[in-house]
Amino acid sequence: MQLLEERIRKDGKVFPGDVLKVDSFLNHQLDAELLDAVGAEIADLFKDCAVTKVLTAEASGIAVACFVAAHLHCPALFAKKTRTLNIAASVWSAKAHSYTHGNDYTMVVSKEYLSSEDTVLIVDDFLANGSALRALRNLCIEAGAKVAGAGIAIEKAYQGGGDELRAEGMRIESMARIASMDAEDGIRFC
Amino acid sequence: MQLLEERIRKDGKVFPGDVLKVDSFLNHQLDAELLDAVGAEIADLFKDCAVTKVLTAEASGIAVACFVAAHLHCPALFAKKTRTLNIAASVWSAKAHSYTHGNDYTMVVSKEYLSSEDTVLIVDDFLANGSALRALRNLCIEAGAKVAGAGIAIEKAYQGGGDELRAEGMRIESMARIASMDAEDGIRFC
Repeated sequence: MQLLEERIRKDGKVFPGDVLKVDSFLNHQLDAELLDAVGAEIADLFKDCAVTKVLTAEASGIAVACFVAAHLHCPALFAKKTRTLNIAASVWSAKAHSYTHGNDYTMVVSKEYLSSEDTVLIVDDFLANGSALRALRNLCIEAGAKVAGAGIAIEKAYQGGGDELRAEGMRIESMARIASMDAEDGIRFC
Repeated sequence: MQLLEERIRKDGKVFPGDVLKVDSFLNHQLDAELLDAVGAEIADLFKDCAVTKVLTAEASGIAVACFVAAHLHCPALFAKKTRTLNIAASVWSAKAHSYTHGNDYTMVVSKEYLSSEDTVLIVDDFLANGSALRALRNLCIEAGAKVAGAGIAIEKAYQGGGDELRAEGMRIESMARIASMDAEDGIRFC
């Protein structure tokens, strides 16, 4: 998606340690009009999939997910992240690992809002190693819900998480796919 | 706002301990079309205030804030909640207390995205005792930003936090104001 790639080129900052900082428009400050356009594009790609629910993870996935859901005329649902070991019986839960924070955590959603009746589109701001996306998919598997696929704003394609999941049969549509990046040479898209 | 009051009456659940559960449409599962309508209404009320930024708190404020920002054609910014005591020099910070979780926490936003150039509309899903709203206002005061006011989805008016802040001169527009509620008699709006 050209609009997003241009914005990443203009305002994204690459730091050592494989860090792409896009918090001026995607995950701290939010460019609502850009994210609405990203949401519209993702929604259009999955418009024939009879999606009943858009699933994301708090906090930075919520913005894109809301716009996707508005365009698909269905609800969004955000998984809460917890480090609590005692998980209530009323929730579906799945483990994930944060490479950014170097810790494990658990994602939970209420059983009230995710069931075998649902066809789910998973939405997230970033896809890198795929741990968060796998956890969101596992919540759907636990609930018996069908997964239509995933709509992602920025995929760090060179980390391979997306292609591993594609090889397992998951449809993943990323609005910007980064082939390589470093502080000196900048960002190259697929 | 009639649409929101009707939805609270239909799907809101009152539990002992002054708990109003609206997580089927506002703060876990999100009715994106309803929240877009709430956002449009808040944006309309502040359309002549030259708002440059919509400020909210993660995670459940993000959805409404995004829709308000899209309608006002300006960015949204969400404060991150942390329990860390060492606050970086690069952020504005303000303390708040969660009555729900019984703990203190700190809200932070990057100094890059909030400055004395900004006119801020604060947006949140809930207003009860006003602790979160005060913290968001204090972030603006720290940054030297002008506060145009606050747009709130649901105000528990009987808790008084909103009226205290109004008495201090803050403009607060709440889309649904609850005068009283209990599990037996249900919810009464102002």
